[in-house]
Amino acid sequence: MSTSGESKIEADPNLPIIRIVREFAGTPEQLFRAHTDPELFARWIGPSSLRTRIEEWDARSGGSWRFVSSRDGEEYAFRGCFHEVRPDRIVQTFTYEGDPDGVALETLWFEDLGNGRTRLRTQSLVDSFEARDAWLRSGMEVGVNEGHAKLEEMLADGTA
Amino acid sequence: MSTSGESKIEADPNLPIIRIVREFAGTPEQLFRAHTDPELFARWIGPSSLRTRIEEWDARSGGSWRFVSSRDGEEYAFRGCFHEVRPDRIVQTFTYEGDPDGVALETLWFEDLGNGRTRLRTQSLVDSFEARDAWLRSGMEVGVNEGHAKLEEMLADGTA
Repeated sequence: MSTSGESKIEADPNLPIIRIVREFAGTPEQLFRAHTDPELFARWIGPSSLRTRIEEWDARSGGSWRFVSSRDGEEYAFRGCFHEVRPDRIVQTFTYEGDPDGVALETLWFEDLGNGRTRLRTQSLVDSFEARDAWLRSGMEVGVNEGHAKLEEMLADGTA
Repeated sequence: MSTSGESKIEADPNLPIIRIVREFAGTPEQLFRAHTDPELFARWIGPSSLRTRIEEWDARSGGSWRFVSSRDGEEYAFRGCFHEVRPDRIVQTFTYEGDPDGVALETLWFEDLGNGRTRLRTQSLVDSFEARDAWLRSGMEVGVNEGHAKLEEMLADGTA
């Protein structure tokens, strides 16, 4: 197992946006599939201590999604709709149901770096700096880093 | 026919957001229906010089929508998904297909003012000030004001 370190997580200085960047040893097609195939997605998303089950998944422009992550009987549910699903970009909404009025607009880009490598860039846009900074303080980096490390392992062992 | 003047359209000084506020002589239920019933919606949305046909319409959380407005053979198409549809609030994505990479996250609130009146507040969030200011320069206020005036007339004559 080889990991390439941490995902880069940054707050925009002037916009209520969080950006995450990480390079993967996989093609854009593999990354796209790992984000749209519900069985693959459930295996890597989120912290290692949680198990995720997909409750709803229609990964096409205009579809919707919902998943529940759980640990020791505690459940965390997330939901949204897919605004656009295309090979180089996914645009979706995102709500943590524990904060039902909060909504983020997320964009994911799969950039082909050649030689079977891809740069994943994601952007989460919310409507206030307070909401953005609450996300940054929530411990989200654990889920991002552990999730991306699992995805890296799946690409390395041929399961993604 | 009585109109109450113009809709208030404002750019946030610190966020890439456009806010629109207008009060209507209708209940929150009437306003909600005028935004979710496709036949009603098509009759008031946009400038008076355009005719709108609904191509896709599933006004529930996780549904999607698309409509086409036309004038003299020119067509303008818009699409998005409904993140959340509930009596006091609609959250949806919005893309003008002439600018297919642009996406706004729109929130509409229906605030009960009593006495059969409702304050409609809308917020459009995009990911840059440039995109926000391009919308402001696009002549959008004509469509907002003329559309809201049509909706006011429909509430006044009992068709909404």
